[in-house]
Amino acid sequence: MARVNKNYGLLKENYLFSDIAKKVKKYCTENPTNTIIRMGIGDVTLPLPLVAVKAMQDASIEMGDKKTFKGYGDEQGYGFLQKAIQDYYIKTSNVSIDLDEIFISDGAKSDIGNFSELFSNDNEIVIPDPVYPVYIDSNIMLGRKIKLINGNKENSFLPLPSEDLKGDVIYLCSPNNPTGSVYSYEQLKIWVDYALNNNSVILFDSAYEAFISDNSLPRSIFQIENARKCCVEFCSLSKTAGFTGTRCGYTIVPKELIVEGIKLNNMWRRRQTTKYNGTSYIVQRGAEAIFSEEGIMQCKKNIDYYRTNAKIISDTLDEIGIWYTGGINSPYIWLECGRDSWDFFDFLLEKTNVVGTPGSGFGKCGEGFFRLTAFNSYENTCIAMERIKKIFQ
Amino acid sequence: MARVNKNYGLLKENYLFSDIAKKVKKYCTENPTNTIIRMGIGDVTLPLPLVAVKAMQDASIEMGDKKTFKGYGDEQGYGFLQKAIQDYYIKTSNVSIDLDEIFISDGAKSDIGNFSELFSNDNEIVIPDPVYPVYIDSNIMLGRKIKLINGNKENSFLPLPSEDLKGDVIYLCSPNNPTGSVYSYEQLKIWVDYALNNNSVILFDSAYEAFISDNSLPRSIFQIENARKCCVEFCSLSKTAGFTGTRCGYTIVPKELIVEGIKLNNMWRRRQTTKYNGTSYIVQRGAEAIFSEEGIMQCKKNIDYYRTNAKIISDTLDEIGIWYTGGINSPYIWLECGRDSWDFFDFLLEKTNVVGTPGSGFGKCGEGFFRLTAFNSYENTCIAMERIKKIFQ
Repeated sequence: MARVNKNYGLLKENYLFSDIAKKVKKYCTENPTNTIIRMGIGDVTLPLPLVAVKAMQDASIEMGDKKTFKGYGDEQGYGFLQKAIQDYYIKTSNVSIDLDEIFISDGAKSDIGNFSELFSNDNEIVIPDPVYPVYIDSNIMLGRKIKLINGNKENSFLPLPSEDLKGDVIYLCSPNNPTGSVYSYEQLKIWVDYALNNNSVILFDSAYEAFISDNSLPRSIFQIENARKCCVEFCSLSKTAGFTGTRCGYTIVPKELIVEGIKLNNMWRRRQTTKYNGTSYIVQRGAEAIFSEEGIMQCKKNIDYYRTNAKIISDTLDEIGIWYTGGINSPYIWLECGRDSWDFFDFLLEKTNVVGTPGSGFGKCGEGFFRLTAFNSYENTCIAMERIKKIFQ
Repeated sequence: MARVNKNYGLLKENYLFSDIAKKVKKYCTENPTNTIIRMGIGDVTLPLPLVAVKAMQDASIEMGDKKTFKGYGDEQGYGFLQKAIQDYYIKTSNVSIDLDEIFISDGAKSDIGNFSELFSNDNEIVIPDPVYPVYIDSNIMLGRKIKLINGNKENSFLPLPSEDLKGDVIYLCSPNNPTGSVYSYEQLKIWVDYALNNNSVILFDSAYEAFISDNSLPRSIFQIENARKCCVEFCSLSKTAGFTGTRCGYTIVPKELIVEGIKLNNMWRRRQTTKYNGTSYIVQRGAEAIFSEEGIMQCKKNIDYYRTNAKIISDTLDEIGIWYTGGINSPYIWLECGRDSWDFFDFLLEKTNVVGTPGSGFGKCGEGFFRLTAFNSYENTCIAMERIKKIFQ
């Protein structure tokens, strides 16, 4: 008799975005002439850089010609893309990574979700609250014990290890989703030192690194001394290059990262060669183009567009005098709404027709906070902020 | 202190294809003028149908235009592709599947590797030997107890459940990799009845279904009565359409499949929404084109090309009088070599310069057998068979 994985029964259904959709739909039905501006989504809206489009068209043509057709590629990805990522790390962070430490995938969500398989079930997992739900849910599925650490106004939603913290595997996300806050070098060094002292492993999600404009902030955990001995880094082209629907990510597993005498690099390679069959050749060619000089320039233009929106939002909040994190080195603005975050959602929808995301949807510590994103158009962002200014002044 | 998943230590390293590569390299260095013909690989060689190339070029262009750009899609895949697969099942197998039972992925290997997560660790896993290594390795990683059942000449490498078999989750692959043998309706009915009587779940790998030319053989497990209550089916475009490097697969999880009161369809959706972010839009458009009338015609042409090669191989073996399975409804020919399968490998390489795969590489029951594939060119297949004929006559 087959038996199911009982841990699935412990998962909470996350209705956050469907609850939002329902409320917005109801409001629109009752107020058909009002113009809703959606600033709740975490998805990009600008099209792909043309250099990637061209590369994927060319790669598609290659696939139709016997002489250039590609069958199975290495599970770890093509050397041309690994090389491009290696160069990108040098250029943007002055970090050296070997090619066989770079694992190409279909996106950071898969890799973050799957990586925990490499650990035994008795590891204690440390996850900041509020949080991207994948960290928690993927560990609940495995039956892991999870310790949440609190992000709050006092620590600017950048929790650090307390003296008594016991943690074996630690998830960090910087620039953070949902709060937009970014750890400094000094703060990440505290985490890395904690991990080294406790033989812990840090799983570092740097999906939003391309939004960092302040050069005094680290883009990669490997900019921290000795991080190669205790950290894995997940990144993706989703936010860097608008690849949310194109799908390409990469995970860096340094060969110095050894747990109980075993290289996680070897374990992850074994996991991927067994349960993954490589990323589409066409997509890998598109990703390679993103890391070209022209590609990086086109991406920067798009990111600057979102950054301008983020600045419009944060300037507005400064003007009104609302406390927030993010908005400068992140497409997310996490504001203190000073009340139940669903109440604030309703209030904002009714008074301004602006849709955001209630902070409580990201964890208990998100209560009293609210997320706005910079992914709408410049024009809509301006209109939304004018409306918000009006009701708060 | 972080601790690793100890089950990884129980995995055997599989050096099969690297050992083959080494031997071939050595032979080529020592015999530089000889022409090697490779019939060991399980990868396609013909280019993609042009209808898919065109669709992916168009989709790439869509991604570069703000009006048609696509961000995140549903984790389960786009409706247009689910609909195309639904129609394909009706047309080819007369099987009805609901759209929300079709999960699009980046390939069958990922889904087969990940699906076992839905079961608890105390399930007994039944796997035929010889076998595609992913079934075994993905379950070893989870610490599962595995029961191998023997394929052999007596059962034509199509093992059926013995009276005393205890199995909770059963992997079947038909047409089989590596043996090319195909279960009949009657045989699959025995398996489905076994599963229904024992509340077991069958994970059915139909990756090679498009190679079935004999209409009296089932292409889908759902052609068997009541299979919807106990079976999951994994399929892919890798062999159907040459998508080994393009990456697209699909998994069918019927809503009637209930284990301990829980719908596996809901569990798999929860798994995929948590740990997967959807298949590339561009690839899904390519896959949709494959299922168009024109696409199916172009695929059939490619498959017929490989089928012709398979027939050349099986006709040759018939002529020489060597026992084999496969070759008719499969791109694989599994022949009895009557000696240690690595000895036969060396013999064939030296005497004919033809490279195949020793059966022992697929499990203990593969010893004494040898796999040839139909994926080389027509010309090379003819030359190889002439050489083989010569040494055996």
